[in-house]
Amino acid sequence: MLAEQTILRIPGPTPIPPSVNRAMNQPMIGHRDQETKSLLESIKHRLKPIFGTKQEIMVLAGSGTAGLETAVVNTVQPGDEVLVIITGAFGERFAKICQEYNITTHLHDVRWGNAAEAQAVSELLKKHPSIKAVFATYCETSTGVLNPVKDIAEAVHTNSDALFIVDGVSCVGAVETKMDEWGIDVLVTGSQKAMMLPPGLTFIAASNRAWKVIEKNKQPRFYFNLQKYRDNLENNSTPFTPAVSLLFGLEQVLQLLESETLEKVYQRHQVMMNMTRAAFKAMNIPLLTSDPAASPTVTAIKPEDFNPEDLRNIIKQDFKMTVAGGQQHLKGEIFRIGHMGYCSPADVLQSISLIEIGIKKIGKDITLGRGIQAAQEVYIQQL
Amino acid sequence: MLAEQTILRIPGPTPIPPSVNRAMNQPMIGHRDQETKSLLESIKHRLKPIFGTKQEIMVLAGSGTAGLETAVVNTVQPGDEVLVIITGAFGERFAKICQEYNITTHLHDVRWGNAAEAQAVSELLKKHPSIKAVFATYCETSTGVLNPVKDIAEAVHTNSDALFIVDGVSCVGAVETKMDEWGIDVLVTGSQKAMMLPPGLTFIAASNRAWKVIEKNKQPRFYFNLQKYRDNLENNSTPFTPAVSLLFGLEQVLQLLESETLEKVYQRHQVMMNMTRAAFKAMNIPLLTSDPAASPTVTAIKPEDFNPEDLRNIIKQDFKMTVAGGQQHLKGEIFRIGHMGYCSPADVLQSISLIEIGIKKIGKDITLGRGIQAAQEVYIQQL
Repeated sequence: MLAEQTILRIPGPTPIPPSVNRAMNQPMIGHRDQETKSLLESIKHRLKPIFGTKQEIMVLAGSGTAGLETAVVNTVQPGDEVLVIITGAFGERFAKICQEYNITTHLHDVRWGNAAEAQAVSELLKKHPSIKAVFATYCETSTGVLNPVKDIAEAVHTNSDALFIVDGVSCVGAVETKMDEWGIDVLVTGSQKAMMLPPGLTFIAASNRAWKVIEKNKQPRFYFNLQKYRDNLENNSTPFTPAVSLLFGLEQVLQLLESETLEKVYQRHQVMMNMTRAAFKAMNIPLLTSDPAASPTVTAIKPEDFNPEDLRNIIKQDFKMTVAGGQQHLKGEIFRIGHMGYCSPADVLQSISLIEIGIKKIGKDITLGRGIQAAQEVYIQQL
Repeated sequence: MLAEQTILRIPGPTPIPPSVNRAMNQPMIGHRDQETKSLLESIKHRLKPIFGTKQEIMVLAGSGTAGLETAVVNTVQPGDEVLVIITGAFGERFAKICQEYNITTHLHDVRWGNAAEAQAVSELLKKHPSIKAVFATYCETSTGVLNPVKDIAEAVHTNSDALFIVDGVSCVGAVETKMDEWGIDVLVTGSQKAMMLPPGLTFIAASNRAWKVIEKNKQPRFYFNLQKYRDNLENNSTPFTPAVSLLFGLEQVLQLLESETLEKVYQRHQVMMNMTRAAFKAMNIPLLTSDPAASPTVTAIKPEDFNPEDLRNIIKQDFKMTVAGGQQHLKGEIFRIGHMGYCSPADVLQSISLIEIGIKKIGKDITLGRGIQAAQEVYIQQL
């Protein structure tokens, strides 16, 4: 096997563009020097279109979970009631964080593979009028569902005064996101998915409504105190040492996204989703999610007549290609293909052609090339 | 389009493995320091299996053509008669270099796309008994032909006392090469093809018979004087400043080749050739060369009902994928796909799936997926 080549198609971390790797290799600079201030100033303005917001976006050194915990500890405190919408493992994570902080947590548990429905959220809010915040996941990485956060935001604001807090980790930067227009009060994402960076940064923004809550919130917090980040950002600084190399990389990521244009980035992800889904439909291998619930960044496949782990093993062995397995009760039941960030239709075609070989080699009698053909047709029609 | 992604599938320069790029980024060292001596010592032993020789392999800073000229000026001088076997543009280059130095040059001109035949070489040597050197091309990059250098070497040594000098630029490191066993007297290759490095190094080795000629050769030469390189190499040094970064990279390339094993590297290239050829046969698009004449490193395709330049343009535009066109009288008649060096069966599948889309988009009514299917079947049967 070709030494060293790896094909990473998990839903994050995702491959790093070469120019981003080069940018991250710049010599270290002092984190209080003017160079860092200039870097932070350049970044802060250019992140806003990705979130669809006029608010400041704070960048913390930490993983996506650090961002989710930051959202919780800044907006709620013990005794508060919240609603957490769970459509998979990352919805559950929001619930666990809330429970850790002794927040009274109502759950809206949706069958894994399905999207949450705004109507159900409305009903729960009517039933529990004290709910102060609703937590949702935009793309549920564990199932490949893209939840209708725009509709849910409307349901939240129509039926309550609660804040609407969204985990956008596995899709912001790859799908249209209009934080201000849709009424998202707190939006969180991470660096290692559509943002094409290594793990290590989390991004978070808050609405004016959210800031009023945050300023009054008594929950103890130090590193995760968003006010400190906001106050420092006014002077193009950070309260604690920023992850400088990742910021170098982020500046280059912004350059790449701007050069492609966000509109084209979102279109590319739509086409990659459609190519992937068309391929498995053509192979008669079931998808976990329906077309309307599907995320442009990750696709979960739920085969009926072969073991996804056998497939994952053989493509790893033959091609050093990695796709993700299932989590929790979907372990061994599904596999998940990431198609986000530094990933192109050409990469999707490669992934599918290798998966076809893998499926054949583990003994399922498929017609080779059929999935590829369907994906090629989608490409020709849609791009 | 995904900013920055490029898919380079020309027959050299070829993609650089990430670890080789990292190796080349090491801090510069003094070219007369012990570090450089250690580097040269490590390299010189490890290159020998690639050439299939016990002779020293000299590494010059220069392109492949510098290596070809080095072979000429060290072995022949004005008044000498030579035979140059021409199967394409790089055979012609050997002839032009000989002619530049006023060497009496007999040509064995083979129709482009065909391989040279040992029998014809035997006859020419019998007809011109004064021939002192025979120049041949192992892989003719311009046509994708792999010439039978083992058979030609036998013909040369059976019928003459001439030296047999071989341009191995576009295949050594990707195909089996037994310089000593086959009787190649001078073998040249370059860094930017199967050796997975940027252009800038040329490699050259000579047999004991060749060294006797080289030592007596009166042709003026300074930078290209092989004796200087040999004498310096005894002390793990070079007569002129070596291309240090490329040597850093070369050390890592050797690591990669050793970790895969040369046997597996050669097998991988065979399979990539077979996959590529099977794909175009399945699409009913003619190949320029016959199966026995085909090179494992590059495939030339000669379509009858579409313009290869249209295809090259559309895949460049859609995918930033580059394949090569034809040279000289084959310009506009063929396109050439490189599949050597840092290239895998997975990459071949990607290339073919993109070329299928390109062919469809320029208006030829092909069945998508058919070429891929044939290539996938070859992969499953052969690897």
